[in-house]
Amino acid sequence: MRASRFFISTLKEAPSDAEIISHKLMMRAGMIKRLGSGIYTYMPMGLRVIRKVENIVREEMNRAGAVELLMPVVQPAELWQETGRWDKMGPELMRVKDRHGRDYAIQPTSEEVITDVVRTEIKSYRQLPINFYHIQTKFRDERRPRFGLMRGREFTMKDAYSFDRDVAGMQASYKAMYDAYVRIFDRFGLQFRAVAADNGAIGGSGSHEFHVIADTGEDALVYCPESDYAANIEAAEALAPAGERAAAAQPLAKTPTPGKAKCEHVAELLSLPLSQTVKSIVLAVEKEDADKEIWLLLLRGDHELNEIKASKVAGLANYRFASEGEILEWFGTKPGYLGPIGTKKPVRIVADRTVAMMADFVCGANEEDFHYTGVNWGRDLPEPVVADLRNVVAGDASPDGKGKLAIQRGIEVGHVFQLGTRYSEDMKATYLDETGKPQLIQMGCYGIGVTRILGAAIEQNFDDRGIIWPASIAPFEVVLCPMGYDRSEAVKAETERLYESLLAAGVDVIVDDRGERPGVMFADWELIGVPHRVVIGDRGLKDGKLEYQGRRDAEATPVPVAEMLGFVKARLAS
Amino acid sequence: MRASRFFISTLKEAPSDAEIISHKLMMRAGMIKRLGSGIYTYMPMGLRVIRKVENIVREEMNRAGAVELLMPVVQPAELWQETGRWDKMGPELMRVKDRHGRDYAIQPTSEEVITDVVRTEIKSYRQLPINFYHIQTKFRDERRPRFGLMRGREFTMKDAYSFDRDVAGMQASYKAMYDAYVRIFDRFGLQFRAVAADNGAIGGSGSHEFHVIADTGEDALVYCPESDYAANIEAAEALAPAGERAAAAQPLAKTPTPGKAKCEHVAELLSLPLSQTVKSIVLAVEKEDADKEIWLLLLRGDHELNEIKASKVAGLANYRFASEGEILEWFGTKPGYLGPIGTKKPVRIVADRTVAMMADFVCGANEEDFHYTGVNWGRDLPEPVVADLRNVVAGDASPDGKGKLAIQRGIEVGHVFQLGTRYSEDMKATYLDETGKPQLIQMGCYGIGVTRILGAAIEQNFDDRGIIWPASIAPFEVVLCPMGYDRSEAVKAETERLYESLLAAGVDVIVDDRGERPGVMFADWELIGVPHRVVIGDRGLKDGKLEYQGRRDAEATPVPVAEMLGFVKARLAS
Repeated sequence: MRASRFFISTLKEAPSDAEIISHKLMMRAGMIKRLGSGIYTYMPMGLRVIRKVENIVREEMNRAGAVELLMPVVQPAELWQETGRWDKMGPELMRVKDRHGRDYAIQPTSEEVITDVVRTEIKSYRQLPINFYHIQTKFRDERRPRFGLMRGREFTMKDAYSFDRDVAGMQASYKAMYDAYVRIFDRFGLQFRAVAADNGAIGGSGSHEFHVIADTGEDALVYCPESDYAANIEAAEALAPAGERAAAAQPLAKTPTPGKAKCEHVAELLSLPLSQTVKSIVLAVEKEDADKEIWLLLLRGDHELNEIKASKVAGLANYRFASEGEILEWFGTKPGYLGPIGTKKPVRIVADRTVAMMADFVCGANEEDFHYTGVNWGRDLPEPVVADLRNVVAGDASPDGKGKLAIQRGIEVGHVFQLGTRYSEDMKATYLDETGKPQLIQMGCYGIGVTRILGAAIEQNFDDRGIIWPASIAPFEVVLCPMGYDRSEAVKAETERLYESLLAAGVDVIVDDRGERPGVMFADWELIGVPHRVVIGDRGLKDGKLEYQGRRDAEATPVPVAEMLGFVKARLAS
Repeated sequence: MRASRFFISTLKEAPSDAEIISHKLMMRAGMIKRLGSGIYTYMPMGLRVIRKVENIVREEMNRAGAVELLMPVVQPAELWQETGRWDKMGPELMRVKDRHGRDYAIQPTSEEVITDVVRTEIKSYRQLPINFYHIQTKFRDERRPRFGLMRGREFTMKDAYSFDRDVAGMQASYKAMYDAYVRIFDRFGLQFRAVAADNGAIGGSGSHEFHVIADTGEDALVYCPESDYAANIEAAEALAPAGERAAAAQPLAKTPTPGKAKCEHVAELLSLPLSQTVKSIVLAVEKEDADKEIWLLLLRGDHELNEIKASKVAGLANYRFASEGEILEWFGTKPGYLGPIGTKKPVRIVADRTVAMMADFVCGANEEDFHYTGVNWGRDLPEPVVADLRNVVAGDASPDGKGKLAIQRGIEVGHVFQLGTRYSEDMKATYLDETGKPQLIQMGCYGIGVTRILGAAIEQNFDDRGIIWPASIAPFEVVLCPMGYDRSEAVKAETERLYESLLAAGVDVIVDDRGERPGVMFADWELIGVPHRVVIGDRGLKDGKLEYQGRRDAEATPVPVAEMLGFVKARLAS
């Protein structure tokens, strides 16, 4: 490519609505252009990256035996009604009426349509397994779109759907997709981690997320450096502390803690470690045929509630946080001084595993400005219902028993699900088995956020000069920067010679023939993030040298003219 | 590709809603699957064709210097309001509200968005010319979607937009796109014709359509075999007949023509050629500040009205056909007996160029069951206003004076427009010229209906066994049909050897390893339309032969095993 025939448009400053580095750099590098809230035009420079991401995804999906098709953006509401998602999805699902008043969804994903294809196309067990995928424009009407391509409304997603005869088959298809994803993220050249995840609203029996590691990631990833264990913190089990609960050593005492409504302040006042305190979280559950229930969850003062774990406690599937009014009514005091002893009205108590192992702990006394100290299970209050309620913390024992957990931040870019019969049941997608009996098809689904990869790659790879693309998804692998392309015949001739030889070697190279000053040229390409640069100048040519500089290199390396092609190819291969 | 890893799904019968051959064959060959009215999933076999079409389009657009980007499907209404198209487009424009109640269009085309990109990105004359294109999903809410991909609602279109400093630049960009389109349709391997066209609702100063030639085409294409002249019949000029008008030879006579309300019947009754009769077409024009006008257009009995030409007569831009009530009120009689002589109320008369040259003609007498014969201009009624009102017919003189016109049918698959400042004016898209003065940007736009190409290619290339794809856009170039792949080691080994050698030669080959019976296998691939087939069987192998058959060949050609690779490559190259 020649820069003069391409479209390059860089900015000194990012627009003020760009909050995170990837958004800022993509705007400054002219990769995307905002059209509306969460809606972007992919400019020529950005589209090249998207296409490279798509091609890697496509190659590995094909290698894994998946078959590409293309499902429509505009999808009839009837199918979404069959699975109940027309109602369940809420305002995130963009809905549109045609000229005849018929309802359609603008697809956020395609489980319904692919299941409709399969239920008519697949008749016999002989046609299974099959895995269909497409790479298509999606729309989710996010409440608060932001972060550029990271949380846009219109985006490009690869979604694949596997169909199998039985659970074992589904699990094999799932494994094949998992392995394909590992190859895909390897080829992107990004540091990533696959973690066990919660299935969430999509349903089914198991899932993994693929995260690009980045300090700015929204998700906390839990892993064990000594084993394969890895999970999203939402799904990571916190084991009960090892050993026995210590015996009670202190008497129960109501202690004045005036104005100390937080565990941290109570511990400070009483000169106790925070890990000796217990905090109270109050939930409410509405009941159709009875009064609502109020629940009290107890966590150690230095631990955090895991809301997904809470929802898995029997009876808490549809909980909400209690209002201040409800707290006053059930506890007789305001938040900050709540505890399990002597509530005003009966509440259902659940203690986190760690709390259940504590002795002589501190908790609120259900009276303003007072806490109990020396609280002990079995003595001061009955043994509690126990559950895993908290987020793990670094240093916790790994659930596989093989070491201690560490935590890092990640950006979710892929998700694989074992769906089972979640969709085939609603939509009556069956096949005839060897005996001619209809059986429900077992499904899996597998997504990669194609456009989100760009944001995640940048969050992981940038410096104060701009983006640093891995070569496999860079808009160009190599840029040639001739110093005085229009002034020096020698520079122009050597530039053209190297350009042609790189093209002939299959290298994706751009030559900057715009005639810009070196400073502008270098700043542009460092901002855009092309990983390899060759400078062709009269001064170097006098000594028979060109200058190579990798995007992460501190300085340029002089390379003899005749060796540059081999040098660049070696760098690309490494 | 191996058929066992692909998805092949053929049907014996087309669904009943498929009216035309391309729709029937695409459904039967499993290329598309209906999701809703005018909305199709592109199945794996169809998607392969679409991708090949897209790639040819992309390569030639890039070669012509256009730069690819990708504009969103969901576009803010504000931009469409700036050009007035939000109101003008009517129900064909699919509209959607987001969760905040803001209006969006689902793009049918992208003039507004690209002009918005350009008005902020292009500041100086130095950045011009530029040509941006994308290949993207479009939606048009057709009143009556039909014919499969030929008139779908959701479809894929390539749309390019050129931006220039002045009219000469725009015309050069237009020419470059025209030439690129010729290369594109050449590479498709389709018979096509570029014709001058009317700009229609999109506005601007000139346009050409690209048509795939097919007897089933909706458009009539006019061309001169002796010259370059070619136009859509909508835009083809009908010259005035050469020579002078004959002198009046007959007296004006009111002649009874009971029950003969059509020119054909009147001519038959009076034993006159149809070309001696004149038919009356009555139009109405509503006026804001005055009574409506009634117009009478006169055409020779054997000619057809060209509605676009009528709309270009001064005063007729917004005409409609008159109602029977209006006709009675203005002419005093019912349709079938109307004419220019003695109307009840005054009407404005326009005669087609041919009619203006007629003498002693026949027309209605404005009295039921009566016509006038021997009518002559200047004697029986004043010389008329004259205009070109009719469709040309085969044999008419070519407007370039170089021969006689011929007519063939075509399917419109591409359209190039000189837009001028139609959009840049409304959207204030300007650049600064050398003197620092803002100037309106001159635009062109260029569309290709990617998915429609499939339908058009089939309408041009099919037989009673199925589709016959040109090799460049076939889902596969070559199919290998082993007879007894699973039973004969020799067949399997030779099949695999040939498969690998074709792959290594860069041929897009599929091997049918499904183990189907030969009859099923041959019928499937003839229906799907793969252009080259090689049969590998034990009987042939005994003589060291394989069988080659082109999709249009009447019989198979035996080819020695060792020569088959070269034979197929030669066929692909020819």
